[in-house]
Amino acid sequence: MTGNDLFQQIQQKQSYLSVGLDTDIRRIPTFLLKYDDPVFEFNKAIIDATHDLCVAYKPNLAFYEHQGAKGLLSLEKTMAVIPDEHFTIADAKRGDIGNTSAMYAEAFFNTIGFDAITVAPYMGADSVTPFLQFKGKWVILLALTSNKSSADFQQTVQEAGQPLYEKVMRTAQQWGSEDQLMYVVGATHPNTFQHIRTIAPDHFLLVPGVGAQGGNLAAISKYGFNKQCGLLVNSSRGIIYAGDGKDFAEKARDKALELQQQMAKLLKNHSII
Amino acid sequence: MTGNDLFQQIQQKQSYLSVGLDTDIRRIPTFLLKYDDPVFEFNKAIIDATHDLCVAYKPNLAFYEHQGAKGLLSLEKTMAVIPDEHFTIADAKRGDIGNTSAMYAEAFFNTIGFDAITVAPYMGADSVTPFLQFKGKWVILLALTSNKSSADFQQTVQEAGQPLYEKVMRTAQQWGSEDQLMYVVGATHPNTFQHIRTIAPDHFLLVPGVGAQGGNLAAISKYGFNKQCGLLVNSSRGIIYAGDGKDFAEKARDKALELQQQMAKLLKNHSII
Repeated sequence: MTGNDLFQQIQQKQSYLSVGLDTDIRRIPTFLLKYDDPVFEFNKAIIDATHDLCVAYKPNLAFYEHQGAKGLLSLEKTMAVIPDEHFTIADAKRGDIGNTSAMYAEAFFNTIGFDAITVAPYMGADSVTPFLQFKGKWVILLALTSNKSSADFQQTVQEAGQPLYEKVMRTAQQWGSEDQLMYVVGATHPNTFQHIRTIAPDHFLLVPGVGAQGGNLAAISKYGFNKQCGLLVNSSRGIIYAGDGKDFAEKARDKALELQQQMAKLLKNHSII
Repeated sequence: MTGNDLFQQIQQKQSYLSVGLDTDIRRIPTFLLKYDDPVFEFNKAIIDATHDLCVAYKPNLAFYEHQGAKGLLSLEKTMAVIPDEHFTIADAKRGDIGNTSAMYAEAFFNTIGFDAITVAPYMGADSVTPFLQFKGKWVILLALTSNKSSADFQQTVQEAGQPLYEKVMRTAQQWGSEDQLMYVVGATHPNTFQHIRTIAPDHFLLVPGVGAQGGNLAAISKYGFNKQCGLLVNSSRGIIYAGDGKDFAEKARDKALELQQQMAKLLKNHSII
C-alpha cells in the first residue's frame, strides 16, 4: 500500500484511526470462551463493528504469542477477516542482526501478510534495512514512544545537542523514503509534535497513547498534521474493552465512532478534507 | 536457574557454549523435509548430538515465526526435548510498554518455558522491568551488539562522555541484580571487553558473533572472564550448518566439540576450573 492509497482511505472515511487489537483472553467477555478460538471470535466482532470507521488495524504480537502457537493461529485467522482496504500493522517492535531481521520481515510481510511492522532502532541500519526491501511494505520505526521511561534513553541521551530519538529519526531518513518509513511518536508528548514535524515533515507518524494512556487528540493533530494528514492515531484498550457484555462490539463501535467524529472535524478544520 | 547453577554446569561440562538454534527450513538437509515437522526433527538431532558439550540453547524466534503458527509449534516441541539442566534463551529482542512487556514475559517464561529472554533497551525502564518480576528467570539486555551498525547509536551517541551502550548497562543495574540480568556484548568487539568488565564486573555476558560473524574466542575470554566464568559464548550457524548431509548432526557435534575443547583449555588457563 502506498502513502497515497492510505491518504485516499483517510479522505473517504474521514478518519485516521488505527484500532489496536491487543486482545487478552483474560479480558474478553466470558461468553466468548465457549468458542474454539475466543480471541478470533472477539477480533472478528470488533472488526465487523469498526471497519468503516478506521483505516488501520494493529494487532500487538505479545497478546498472540502469549497463547503460543494457538495464538499465532488466532492472528492468522484474524488477518484473513480484515478487509483488504485496511492498512495492517504488526506491532512487534522487532530488530536484530541482518539475517534475522530478514527472517522477521518475511514472517510478517509474507507469511502473515502485514503491510507494516514496528521496528526498534537500537541495533542500527543493518537491523532495519532488511525490512525495507519489500515493495509496498512499511517500517514503522520507534522514535519517541508513549511510555514514561522513554525519558531514560530516547530523550536523555544527547549527541550534538539532539536527543537520541531525533538522531534516530534523522539517521533513518538515509535508509528509506517517506513512502516506506513511518515513525512511532507517542500521543503523551503533544508538545514535541511541532519539533518532530521540523525533522520529518512528510512522514506518516503512528501515534499510540490516545485513550488508556491519556494523550490528547486535538493537540496532537494540530501540530502533527501535514498536507496528507500524516497521522495514524491508534487506540487499543479504549476501544476494544469499552464493553464487557454481549454488546461489547457495539460499545467498541461507539468509542470508535466518537474518535472518528472528532477526527472528521479536525481534518475539516485543518482543511485536509 | 541461578547464576550459581549455571556456573556449576559450566564447571561440570568445562564449557560455556550456547548453541543457537537459528533453524531455517531452507537450509536444513533436504532428507528431513519428508517428516511432518522438519524443523523439530533437525533441532532434536542437533540437541541429541551436542547436549553434553553446551550449557545453553538459544532458539532465535525469527526463524520460528517465519513459519507462522506451525513454527511456534516446532519451537514448543523443541523446548520439550531440551534437557532440564540446560539454560534456555529466547532470542527475541522484545521490549514494549509495560502491559505489553508483561505479556511477552508471560509468553516466553510461562507459556513456552524459557529461562531467559533477550530484551531491547530503547524504551527504557518500564519496558524492561516487567521481565524482571519472574523468580529464577533472566533478562539478557542488548548492550553492544555484534553487528556492524551497532556503531550507529550504541557506540556513537554519547552522554557525559559515555556511549549509549555504557549508559544502558549502568542504568539497567538499578533495575535488577546480577542474578537476573545479563548483557549482550558481541564477540566482534574484543577490545571493549576490558572496559565492559569495569562497568559490569559480576554480570554474565551473552556473547554472540563467534563463528559465522568472525569473533575470536581467546581474546573475548581473556578480557571477559570473571571468577564465575561470566560468559556464555554462542555459536549458531557455525555449528548447526556445519554439515548438510545425513551426518549433519555428527558434523555439528564436531564443531561444538572443537569449541568446547578450546573453552576447557581457556577455563583451565585462567584458573576458573
